[in-house]
Amino acid sequence: MTEHEGYMARALELAQEALAEGEVPVGCVIVWEDGRIVGEGRNRREAEGDALGHAELEAISMACKTLGGWRLHRAKLYVTLEPCPMCAGAILNARIPAVYYGAKDESMGSCGSVLNLFEEDFGHHPRLYGCILEEKCVQLLQDFFAKMRKK
Amino acid sequence: MTEHEGYMARALELAQEALAEGEVPVGCVIVWEDGRIVGEGRNRREAEGDALGHAELEAISMACKTLGGWRLHRAKLYVTLEPCPMCAGAILNARIPAVYYGAKDESMGSCGSVLNLFEEDFGHHPRLYGCILEEKCVQLLQDFFAKMRKK
Repeated sequence: MTEHEGYMARALELAQEALAEGEVPVGCVIVWEDGRIVGEGRNRREAEGDALGHAELEAISMACKTLGGWRLHRAKLYVTLEPCPMCAGAILNARIPAVYYGAKDESMGSCGSVLNLFEEDFGHHPRLYGCILEEKCVQLLQDFFAKMRKK
Repeated sequence: MTEHEGYMARALELAQEALAEGEVPVGCVIVWEDGRIVGEGRNRREAEGDALGHAELEAISMACKTLGGWRLHRAKLYVTLEPCPMCAGAILNARIPAVYYGAKDESMGSCGSVLNLFEEDFGHHPRLYGCILEEKCVQLLQDFFAKMRKK
């Protein structure tokens, strides 16, 4: 397992927690340049009834608190699902320079699927790495939607 | 003063509060279909050291709490500055159908300036109204940046 897969495996654990509570299984981990995990998050939209309850936002907010400031310019973000426009925008606002994701999101993905916010003219262009532990990330989402269809 | 200008005037009061605390002056108000203000927010990025500290996110999160759910599908959002990609994405996620803004944002604006997320293929297309009390919204921002330059 590579270093990147190791962090994605932790994001997958968080996604599992979301799945166990009936949320779309998405998990996120933010890693500082020294290798420390400084932020973690998972989807909590239904439990909290909050449109902002995405994994990346929770992880970014926690990382800002951990580090005492809003500039995460030496961090890497790992997330099991390609970020939506809100979360990709938050990554830009936090100046995160590198993003690793697992599964593509054809309906909301804003790092290459519907569009790519990191290539637009916002003055910040995070490096982007897709398909990290992709099969496991996709499987978890398929498990969730299969469960939903049975209900 | 029209109804829309009335709500924008309240958003401007919130922006003034931000200015008084040394934040970029942006304020936001969310109004339910019955005319009630269900969410308010203002920029708090520097005070909270949080990249998510934008006016719209605070207002959306408050409106979700007020209404007890993440679907703001009968709300209007008023904000003094054109939303950035994170906030425009949050508006999409919350299914807000109508957005009124004051000043354009040439560097981060994602409702027509840099791009328009509401015209992209995300399956939700909020109606968009710009230039509400535009002069006052612009003036407040100019006051802030003049103060910054003096420092």
